[in-house]
Amino acid sequence: MARKLRMGMVGGSYDAFIGDVHRKAARMDGRIDVVAGAFSSNPEKSQETGKRLAIDPSRVYDTFDAMLAAEKKLPADKRIDFVTVVTPNHMHFKPVKAALEAGFHVVCEKPLSYTMDEGREIKNIIAKTKRAFMLTHNYTGYPMVKQAKAMVSGGELGKVMKVVVEFPQGWILALMSSVGLKINPWRMDPKVSGISNCMGDIGTHCFNLAEYITGLTIDSVCADLTCFKGQPLDNDGNVLLRFNNGAKGVLHASQISFGEACGLNIRVYCEKGRIAWKQENPNYLLVQKDDTPVMTYERKGGGYLTPAADRGSRIPVGHPEAFIEAFANLYVNFADTLVALEEGRKPSDLELDFPGVDDGLRGLAFIKAVVDNGFNDNSKWTKITV
Amino acid sequence: MARKLRMGMVGGSYDAFIGDVHRKAARMDGRIDVVAGAFSSNPEKSQETGKRLAIDPSRVYDTFDAMLAAEKKLPADKRIDFVTVVTPNHMHFKPVKAALEAGFHVVCEKPLSYTMDEGREIKNIIAKTKRAFMLTHNYTGYPMVKQAKAMVSGGELGKVMKVVVEFPQGWILALMSSVGLKINPWRMDPKVSGISNCMGDIGTHCFNLAEYITGLTIDSVCADLTCFKGQPLDNDGNVLLRFNNGAKGVLHASQISFGEACGLNIRVYCEKGRIAWKQENPNYLLVQKDDTPVMTYERKGGGYLTPAADRGSRIPVGHPEAFIEAFANLYVNFADTLVALEEGRKPSDLELDFPGVDDGLRGLAFIKAVVDNGFNDNSKWTKITV
Amino acid sequence: MARKLRMGMVGGSYDAFIGDVHRKAARMDGRIDVVAGAFSSNPEKSQETGKRLAIDPSRVYDTFDAMLAAEKKLPADKRIDFVTVVTPNHMHFKPVKAALEAGFHVVCEKPLSYTMDEGREIKNIIAKTKRAFMLTHNYTGYPMVKQAKAMVSGGELGKVMKVVVEFPQGWILALMSSVGLKINPWRMDPKVSGISNCMGDIGTHCFNLAEYITGLTIDSVCADLTCFKGQPLDNDGNVLLRFNNGAKGVLHASQISFGEACGLNIRVYCEKGRIAWKQENPNYLLVQKDDTPVMTYERKGGGYLTPAADRGSRIPVGHPEAFIEAFANLYVNFADTLVALEEGRKPSDLELDFPGVDDGLRGLAFIKAVVDNGFNDNSKWTKITV
Amino acid sequence: MARKLRMGMVGGSYDAFIGDVHRKAARMDGRIDVVAGAFSSNPEKSQETGKRLAIDPSRVYDTFDAMLAAEKKLPADKRIDFVTVVTPNHMHFKPVKAALEAGFHVVCEKPLSYTMDEGREIKNIIAKTKRAFMLTHNYTGYPMVKQAKAMVSGGELGKVMKVVVEFPQGWILALMSSVGLKINPWRMDPKVSGISNCMGDIGTHCFNLAEYITGLTIDSVCADLTCFKGQPLDNDGNVLLRFNNGAKGVLHASQISFGEACGLNIRVYCEKGRIAWKQENPNYLLVQKDDTPVMTYERKGGGYLTPAADRGSRIPVGHPEAFIEAFANLYVNFADTLVALEEGRKPSDLELDFPGVDDGLRGLAFIKAVVDNGFNDNSKWTKITV
Repeated sequence: MARKLRMGMVGGSYDAFIGDVHRKAARMDGRIDVVAGAFSSNPEKSQETGKRLAIDPSRVYDTFDAMLAAEKKLPADKRIDFVTVVTPNHMHFKPVKAALEAGFHVVCEKPLSYTMDEGREIKNIIAKTKRAFMLTHNYTGYPMVKQAKAMVSGGELGKVMKVVVEFPQGWILALMSSVGLKINPWRMDPKVSGISNCMGDIGTHCFNLAEYITGLTIDSVCADLTCFKGQPLDNDGNVLLRFNNGAKGVLHASQISFGEACGLNIRVYCEKGRIAWKQENPNYLLVQKDDTPVMTYERKGGGYLTPAADRGSRIPVGHPEAFIEAFANLYVNFADTLVALEEGRKPSDLELDFPGVDDGLRGLAFIKAVVDNGFNDNSKWTKITV
Repeated sequence: MARKLRMGMVGGSYDAFIGDVHRKAARMDGRIDVVAGAFSSNPEKSQETGKRLAIDPSRVYDTFDAMLAAEKKLPADKRIDFVTVVTPNHMHFKPVKAALEAGFHVVCEKPLSYTMDEGREIKNIIAKTKRAFMLTHNYTGYPMVKQAKAMVSGGELGKVMKVVVEFPQGWILALMSSVGLKINPWRMDPKVSGISNCMGDIGTHCFNLAEYITGLTIDSVCADLTCFKGQPLDNDGNVLLRFNNGAKGVLHASQISFGEACGLNIRVYCEKGRIAWKQENPNYLLVQKDDTPVMTYERKGGGYLTPAADRGSRIPVGHPEAFIEAFANLYVNFADTLVALEEGRKPSDLELDFPGVDDGLRGLAFIKAVVDNGFNDNSKWTKITV
Repeated sequence: MARKLRMGMVGGSYDAFIGDVHRKAARMDGRIDVVAGAFSSNPEKSQETGKRLAIDPSRVYDTFDAMLAAEKKLPADKRIDFVTVVTPNHMHFKPVKAALEAGFHVVCEKPLSYTMDEGREIKNIIAKTKRAFMLTHNYTGYPMVKQAKAMVSGGELGKVMKVVVEFPQGWILALMSSVGLKINPWRMDPKVSGISNCMGDIGTHCFNLAEYITGLTIDSVCADLTCFKGQPLDNDGNVLLRFNNGAKGVLHASQISFGEACGLNIRVYCEKGRIAWKQENPNYLLVQKDDTPVMTYERKGGGYLTPAADRGSRIPVGHPEAFIEAFANLYVNFADTLVALEEGRKPSDLELDFPGVDDGLRGLAFIKAVVDNGFNDNSKWTKITV
Repeated sequence: MARKLRMGMVGGSYDAFIGDVHRKAARMDGRIDVVAGAFSSNPEKSQETGKRLAIDPSRVYDTFDAMLAAEKKLPADKRIDFVTVVTPNHMHFKPVKAALEAGFHVVCEKPLSYTMDEGREIKNIIAKTKRAFMLTHNYTGYPMVKQAKAMVSGGELGKVMKVVVEFPQGWILALMSSVGLKINPWRMDPKVSGISNCMGDIGTHCFNLAEYITGLTIDSVCADLTCFKGQPLDNDGNVLLRFNNGAKGVLHASQISFGEACGLNIRVYCEKGRIAWKQENPNYLLVQKDDTPVMTYERKGGGYLTPAADRGSRIPVGHPEAFIEAFANLYVNFADTLVALEEGRKPSDLELDFPGVDDGLRGLAFIKAVVDNGFNDNSKWTKITV
């Protein structure tokens, strides 16, 4: 009989955005139950969150240390299987390290950590503890992104020549008006966010998506970052890209692009074809190749889809799936991997298709390069070094 | 402390489409657990389904009668709170009736029943048993549909003059080729489906959506139904509509419209404005009024949205929600209503915003009228009579 | 050396909409000059129009009879080659008849005439005078419409099963507000328009487009016409269609659909594919066939286009052409035909691809059938009889 | 009485793309006739072109010098009013200079000239001869571009913060396959094109459009240009922009972006609103401001349009106008200006709204800066200096 995996959370109190997305995504497919948590640095808030989530109060903890210690003592068929860390950036490292060392598998929100050094240490700990680790670069969970990856990195469209990847948002302007996306302003605080706001938060998604779909690495960047409105960290960035195969690219991300909500999108131009995808209407992938007209591939659209794209779908073509479903696809693959490990079986490539610590390290290296370059008018190109 | 409601299913074995959607929708928001089921008329299949769902084998039953009898005997804090019926059309009446009479609340897939007489009897039983009843006309769960309803039926756009509502699909052609949506062919069998296939399955969604958004009733229909490909039931239908306020309309639905997937869409033209909405890209609502340009309202888009539209959203603008989330919105309102009843409190209008037995009866009356009229070349207009 | 054809106009004074479109369309490709005209029933307005158009005042006439008489006397290398009639509906018959009988070729705005009898007489006169005659059902001039016709009527997509054709406009509501399209209200006057406003003006375009693209004929109609706002003629109509091959269809047109501008569009569903086209974004044609994804054919898009579609383009893919260019395509084919006749050569099928008197007669028959049926609640189906 | 202006052409033989567009644009509105030309450096080709255009053979010339000399001697009511130069880049300077000095007004295709020095000399000659001069940066002729300019440069949307402007094309790849746009390969030849291919041909359109709409100047650029496929000149370029008001931007243009046709588009983000416009669907302008939803402004859409946008329209909303019409708008304004000068009246701002020599000089300066910077990995920012 199937069993449900048990998840414990660090962070994600009742008023947090992304923590609740993790829960909805984990629950949707009936593979995972949230059974424990240290949901806030404020113990009362943690208890209140547990109450609202109908979690046994004895498994709602004041601190992540307390959670790890107590859960470790529970019998194997009761204790949590893995820990999901959804705290702000500066609070990723400690609970991730502690959870891994306590023997738990770990899911961590991006970025991997506050500094590159922390990130490298996490990589070492994972190697040592042999625990599964997932970093939620969630946009790679969309089926049509997987289709794009299969077609582009698989070579079907020929050599990649140019990539344009964008993530416009307008929420920082919206904070000053009544329109649009409201996001917690901790991202603007260097002590919490680290060296970057905009590039760290959403520029990394662009970077990750471009590398994921092309299967290439981005060698170097030339950037112009701006701290509009007198903020201490960047809230807009425009970046030129050079890929390891000679391809060129443009990456731009912004939090001051009036009216934009979650406008992540990517276009990849190859020698024999192209793809284009937009997160806000994610069930479609524009594909053109050879001498075909522009084609619109649809999620569950038919025999033209690859197994990876097909696997990430629940319901038939025309019945849209969206953000939470894509997020859930990461959890499905992670759950399959944990079950495989439990059964002593090597997970398949499809099961292992979720972002991990190396994606996290590359993301941190990108942030460092782009910040180094983007505020220096004399430096044209900066290498990305993990 | 919040408690999770407990759901038992009739139908919905592991290979069924809509049963699994009900489960995902019910689970997503952490309000409901599936804890019991008679998932198939085949006991082995029912057991296998329970196993895959990690349900306690003692609560996986061979028949719905067995489930109702056994669950009734369980203590109040363990037994199911409500029954969800997701069997084919001809098998709705019996389990719905039995569950209501056993004291359980009920969720039922549409159509309400196989015949009008059954539907009227269900209405009487609900009145007698005072149980909550939800019919899953799921498309009314979309936030932008609720926005449309608020604006149109609320009178903001002036008197309704014309409605165009469509539901093109192509799956019957797709069954003969390699493209598109695959659906269980039981819908083509009169013994299972009833007097109509296409109009019963998807024409009713058009009808329900038009009445829901306008707040009007459709008085009479003039129809042309067709059984293409020598099938016993209609697989295409074109219908002229007359509304009770003098508005006119067009409704057409099809299963032989090559390449169409789930193309439900509606346009409502009023004296001072209009709306348009498409299910396949559901986070947007076209709105035009007075002397404004065409506007695109977005889910969670800002202060212009009504409470009902806002309530049905989980995540910020630009982060799309879709079919399962809309379906889940029905379950959220149903769960809120059950909790209110449990707490002895009158549910609010927002909580009660889910389709019920009257929608079901009107749907059956529509099917009857449209079948009577649509195969009779001498009858121009047929009244819809509940 | 090429010569420019000489055009004389009946109607089309400086403040008329469609007359000016005819001039722009005729001039664009350098094949035709407007050299004479009786531009208005008001002689001063006719003179003023000629002045603004820089036309030799001696060739600006007070009446069409005067124009025909005077031009006939001019030497062959100076007199007009053809007459374009762009008066209101009730004033088509006389100048068309007179021009044909005076030996001129004729271009006439649709509808062909005020009554069926007049239309039949025009057909006879054409047969007798052997003059070329074009009726400006201009939407058939769009290249992507020609592509659709080639694919559908040519059988590439299999048997036609269903057609949906729409022409929503909102100008009658707009007359009462500040939004949208302003159109001369003579269309609402039965003495000028004839038996129908909406169906005569735009319903016929739907009808013509459906027959043009499918190559089929529409046998019978079942209609519901409405005179909203107490007007004497219909301003909204919803029509069920039956085609001569067993296909079914829906046609609806409206002048009270708030905010709609010129929303003509058509979808044709066949056994092995489909097309969809929208006039407001006319350079694209949605095509799906066999097991392909949805494809977007583009004007001048490549090798997949037929000669007829290619012929109607001036500039490369991505450089949009639009309404006036499509209109001009009719004039190009008409000019080629006149030149062929002058040269004693049989025009090719591509050159003859413009609408003529038979399209006009079928349009009149459609209007009659739909008006007969659409105000009679006891008559379900009415045959279309030329 | 109105008179038609007389145009003589240098270049634009029967097989040239842009020359024919100039003719169609000039003719469309009945304001201008093409009456003379030196259409090719090949006299026979020039004659053949004249023949096809039905031009008096005595006014078809072997060289532009011959044309200018002969036309000058014709009586004032017969000779050409202005000269349009549509030769390849390296052949702009001589005929422009000669025509101006012969006393004719001039229209010139972009770029202004082969070198900056030539461009400056043209500016001086214009000042000296006091002739009207138009450079056909045709995309500024679109009504919705004029609307965008009015709203952005007029300050209605607040301070400009970010600009993204793109011009993807794929024709260089298409030359090697069967898809897409075919363009004369002289653009790849430095002796004809000058120092740049892609940036010179289409990058300058981006640059011009950004400055036109914002009313700002671009101070400096940081670029990465690429000569893919071993070509001598750039065929792809990605550029970071800094504006004189502190705004930032991204400009990228390409001829190797597979499948792209004429993808010019621009987004401008301001403090209190945004606009977005796409050339391939040019009748619409996305506008969002304050706390409105996204709005779709339409050509001739209603009272919300400015006089400049309205002036550039011929036909009602929903009846699309496109590339040739936008091009023709330049000629209409140029013609109005010539008439005003003839009448001794100062042309209005609306009449003077066409690009001129200063736009040309800024374009040349942009090309120089972007080529200097874009092949130098050590130079981050280069000033644009006229």
